Amino acid sequence: MALQQISSFAAGQWVAPGAGARTIASAITGAPIASAGNDALDVLAILDHARNTGGPALRKLGFHDRARLIKALGQALTARKQELYAASFDTGATQSDHLIDIDGGIGTMFVFASKGRREMPDGQIYLDGEVEQLSRNGTFLGQHVCTPLQGVAVHINAFNFPVWGMLEKLAPTLLAGVPSIVKPATNSCYVTELAVRIMLEADILPAGALQLVSGGLGDMLDHLDCQDVVSFTGSADTALKLRSNPVILQNSVRFVAEQDSLNASILGPDAEPGTPEFDLFIKEVAREMTTKAGQKCTAIRRIIAPQPRVEAVIEALSARLSKTVIGDPRDEATRMGALVSGGQKADVLAKAAIIGQEAEQVFTMDPGLSGDLANGAFVPPMLFHCADPDRAQRVHDTEAFGPVSTVMGYRDMDHAVALANRGGGSLVTSLITHDADVARDVVMGAGAFHGRIYINNRDSMKESTGHGSPLPHMVHGGPGRAGGGEEMGGVRGVKHYMQRTAVQGSPEMLARIGGKWVPGATEVAGPAHPFTRRYTELSIGETLNTASRTVTMDDIEHFAHFTGDTFYAHMDDAAAKRNPFFPGRVAHGYLLLSFAAGLFVEPNEGPVLANTGLDGLRFMKPVSAGDSIKVRLSVKAKTRRTDEYGEVRWHVTLTNQDDEQVAEYELLTMNAY
Amino acid sequence: MALQQISSFAAGQWVAPGAGARTIASAITGAPIASAGNDALDVLAILDHARNTGGPALRKLGFHDRARLIKALGQALTARKQELYAASFDTGATQSDHLIDIDGGIGTMFVFASKGRREMPDGQIYLDGEVEQLSRNGTFLGQHVCTPLQGVAVHINAFNFPVWGMLEKLAPTLLAGVPSIVKPATNSCYVTELAVRIMLEADILPAGALQLVSGGLGDMLDHLDCQDVVSFTGSADTALKLRSNPVILQNSVRFVAEQDSLNASILGPDAEPGTPEFDLFIKEVAREMTTKAGQKCTAIRRIIAPQPRVEAVIEALSARLSKTVIGDPRDEATRMGALVSGGQKADVLAKAAIIGQEAEQVFTMDPGLSGDLANGAFVPPMLFHCADPDRAQRVHDTEAFGPVSTVMGYRDMDHAVALANRGGGSLVTSLITHDADVARDVVMGAGAFHGRIYINNRDSMKESTGHGSPLPHMVHGGPGRAGGGEEMGGVRGVKHYMQRTAVQGSPEMLARIGGKWVPGATEVAGPAHPFTRRYTELSIGETLNTASRTVTMDDIEHFAHFTGDTFYAHMDDAAAKRNPFFPGRVAHGYLLLSFAAGLFVEPNEGPVLANTGLDGLRFMKPVSAGDSIKVRLSVKAKTRRTDEYGEVRWHVTLTNQDDEQVAEYELLTMNAY
Repeated sequence: MALQQISSFAAGQWVAPGAGARTIASAITGAPIASAGNDALDVLAILDHARNTGGPALRKLGFHDRARLIKALGQALTARKQELYAASFDTGATQSDHLIDIDGGIGTMFVFASKGRREMPDGQIYLDGEVEQLSRNGTFLGQHVCTPLQGVAVHINAFNFPVWGMLEKLAPTLLAGVPSIVKPATNSCYVTELAVRIMLEADILPAGALQLVSGGLGDMLDHLDCQDVVSFTGSADTALKLRSNPVILQNSVRFVAEQDSLNASILGPDAEPGTPEFDLFIKEVAREMTTKAGQKCTAIRRIIAPQPRVEAVIEALSARLSKTVIGDPRDEATRMGALVSGGQKADVLAKAAIIGQEAEQVFTMDPGLSGDLANGAFVPPMLFHCADPDRAQRVHDTEAFGPVSTVMGYRDMDHAVALANRGGGSLVTSLITHDADVARDVVMGAGAFHGRIYINNRDSMKESTGHGSPLPHMVHGGPGRAGGGEEMGGVRGVKHYMQRTAVQGSPEMLARIGGKWVPGATEVAGPAHPFTRRYTELSIGETLNTASRTVTMDDIEHFAHFTGDTFYAHMDDAAAKRNPFFPGRVAHGYLLLSFAAGLFVEPNEGPVLANTGLDGLRFMKPVSAGDSIKVRLSVKAKTRRTDEYGEVRWHVTLTNQDDEQVAEYELLTMNAY
Repeated sequence: MALQQISSFAAGQWVAPGAGARTIASAITGAPIASAGNDALDVLAILDHARNTGGPALRKLGFHDRARLIKALGQALTARKQELYAASFDTGATQSDHLIDIDGGIGTMFVFASKGRREMPDGQIYLDGEVEQLSRNGTFLGQHVCTPLQGVAVHINAFNFPVWGMLEKLAPTLLAGVPSIVKPATNSCYVTELAVRIMLEADILPAGALQLVSGGLGDMLDHLDCQDVVSFTGSADTALKLRSNPVILQNSVRFVAEQDSLNASILGPDAEPGTPEFDLFIKEVAREMTTKAGQKCTAIRRIIAPQPRVEAVIEALSARLSKTVIGDPRDEATRMGALVSGGQKADVLAKAAIIGQEAEQVFTMDPGLSGDLANGAFVPPMLFHCADPDRAQRVHDTEAFGPVSTVMGYRDMDHAVALANRGGGSLVTSLITHDADVARDVVMGAGAFHGRIYINNRDSMKESTGHGSPLPHMVHGGPGRAGGGEEMGGVRGVKHYMQRTAVQGSPEMLARIGGKWVPGATEVAGPAHPFTRRYTELSIGETLNTASRTVTMDDIEHFAHFTGDTFYAHMDDAAAKRNPFFPGRVAHGYLLLSFAAGLFVEPNEGPVLANTGLDGLRFMKPVSAGDSIKVRLSVKAKTRRTDEYGEVRWHVTLTNQDDEQVAEYELLTMNAY
């Protein structure tokens, strides 16, 4: 059978394998199935295409535009996911594994598309945090902004998730406005290549936004600079080699590493056999050991249980693991498929032997395979028990990247935390407990060593997402052994592909740069009451200054009895005077808000559809009977929500008869488009 | 004269110079004044003292406790700043320079102390961002938290700011809860040593929180791991050497670098001679060239002006620079002192010669010094003009770390941005313009290359803080040539010394870990109405469920006419029905807020002192006449503000007769302690 030719997509062209191509074998049978790699690939042309064609095109779009592209890519992949499933079996993965890789990857695209629309502005500059007051009179202010890097993101992915591994990096990169060069691990690059083909055939992205290198990167990393990012997922050894590249060090090239680590799961002291937590623990550990045949960078390598429960854990886990059906992943009865390659199998067995020097093997099984499968990269689950985890070292630093895990006992919670931390930094530690004090102690004691702490118990187990599942909402990565990087985590992950810049200047400058009005910037006089103007007609800074209204004691009395809010500060002059904040009876804050609305609304039917909310209200000075209030209402920001309407954020300032600020807030309305 | 012996403070002991000590000369006269360094320093004992004594003691405190320590350190330094001034002259710095270094450093401590109290919780775990909804029914949620690293921060500082350079790193490190080992540059370490003595003599910090290495660090960096941070300020060459350390690479040790860079200042196209902006530009550039004799990592090295204005810029700048009085910094008439050492002087002259290969020297002057000063490290201001900045390379990459700068002309704004970016990444670029469109284009075009963009003009010049001044509120650092690091920026800078961890679990777990109630966590039944309970008595999650109140059409009519808010959605059934959000006439949002207050307030005088604000109000479902509302009021978080009172943040949920959420918000009250 002819080998499938796995191409690269370089500088706008599909390039077939050539000199230096490598043969890829099926994980299931060991038979050659594909060929990938081409030493003649022009890496400078690839970089140039990304930097000078893809980047400028992406940067012309705004965050919301790019979010829509990402959603469309997710839809294109969804429409053809059966093809991706079919291609993925040869990596050794089962249909359940495909759901994690393919559906999980697509889901990540949708979450980033949604977060891009909801949490980022409908523009090109992301505002990081609030305005900083750098001067007494407010004529000189600060605002952190993020703008897209002007280079390229080189995504070097691991073999275990050929689709998710690409998409979890691609989504934040595209959202940031940065072009990607995807370099999948060669062992499973045929799945990635198909996913890239599907995305490119959908004709959604601008030219140069996405390129693919199937095979080696050549000397691409030697041509990177401060506008580029390398995002690496894989082994600690490879990461070290790459990050030691002199050009990367010299040019301060961003290097985000996510390395396999010695993740742990801790059974809480309360989770005795017979509790829902004990059963949950056994189930989660067994699942993490066998999903993707244990080839997950987040898989549980160390099982940390109270010393008196170690025997029960080994027993229950062995019983559960013994039911693992190992075999051809295309067979629906199969629960665990093969490792990705014979090379990986040899590596896992060698690492398990190292662990065996410090720990006793307490469970394994015969996978019972024959025929074609006899040459496949199958490895059965292997459970070890380390009796002296304090003196042991290999169980804390040797990762067998397969269905291999070690049970170890702890004396008390401090000991459990110390053992978890012995991994030298990990992607995730889980804790199964129903005791919130235990959870708090573990977070305080182990947080600094772990990128994620997953806590589960009877209350959350129905909806929990699994120890091993990084979610696009939460950061994925960890310190030390886990690489010291971070990916995803919503907008946090997008920022890895942007530069944060501290901008300082006058209110007017900051308002115009950020597209968000700042007090002190120009108050634009509109041609009519702003409530009579449609979303598209309103300009940033458009301002209404209202007439003033005197607040009388009758108003306060009346409001109190009408609403039932007879709080003493409004009703009892002597009591109010005893209060450190009030000169005597004062108007209700809600009375002021209500009167303010009475002053600024335009009553007739018009483009303002609804008041949807209010943010950051602060009462700054009390209002007594006889004081008057007036309102300044300015368009602060606009965010398109649908084709029919958009959200307008208004800056509202209430001042009294002496022009002192009484209250300040941001008002949200939905306005017809 | 005997040399001053500059000690280290190691593992709780002052250690005098010993074998390997270096002699330090006065910048003013070149005469030897001090000796520092000791090859026998026990770096493992220093690390152990920080990790096992200082760290645990700091982590027992909360953010607010540590903020108070930082403020007290600032006060201790303030009380003895005359001593610091007196010691600093020998570095070549003038009294104006001292204000930047010493007063600026102390001010940084105060800002961090204040931000720690205002922007961080009164506890040990910092919550990074909001709760993430990871499940449909809300039983499994996510929350990012930051906890202190459990290692040590090694602060390697530059010679130019012996006090500020230490304090701008120390403040965020201590606030995070991490012990520091300060290693000043040897040339000016006598000033740092005095500042450390002042802080230690004030007896404010726990043992092990602050150590000092005067002289070399030995092999300290070879003993760091994922819980440690190296924060380096200095030259690109030294940074590269340090960050290439195999242990730092292998263990993913955090390495924050802030390197001198080729900062630029751009004169806007609108800023013609005769405008306030032109004069401002000349003034800022001259000041940046001569302050600290140009030994600032943020100093302006490249002056980018419209081609037709180059001549006028050179003329005005030369005229201003010619008035620079160079001399003994102790002399009050002196405007510019000496470089820190003869070595630095030689280096600056050598670098100026390199720049001279591509640019013509258009200004210099004779410093006119004699006597003792003839051997001082004085260098006059030197201005160059580069006629072909596109083809030139050295003017964009060669930093003469003294009063040396190069003027270059630009054709249009794209060209100006391209020239600014030719520096390959810088700490700061400034732009003097009164045109906001120019400012926006520069931020979009140059943001990715610069850690800070400083914009100034006639509106902000009275209160602006200067091109060269990093502020504690704003990030300091930049990509590429500037090191790729970030410091300060308020809480952002504190996070460099903490680990961010994605915590997942049930609402109850997240609430107890973060000390902040989450909907779905336990609703604690208090012994009495929560408004009758003092700040200290209230527990997180303490909840009041109110009776319900029916909203009538009379209420709506009455509220509309009373407040003046006769918006059509409340008054005109047909118009409201045409609106996409409403079923017909609906109650005012402010009516609901007011009725809610009427339902939950306890009217009698008590520990609730004031309603101070409201956050995150969202109206989720309209309320029509005949619907009823009821309120759930829960203590979400507490923050002590003074000894007399604290802020209580309440989570408020309004539901209707069908238990559907109508509105949700957070209410702030100030409660007696």
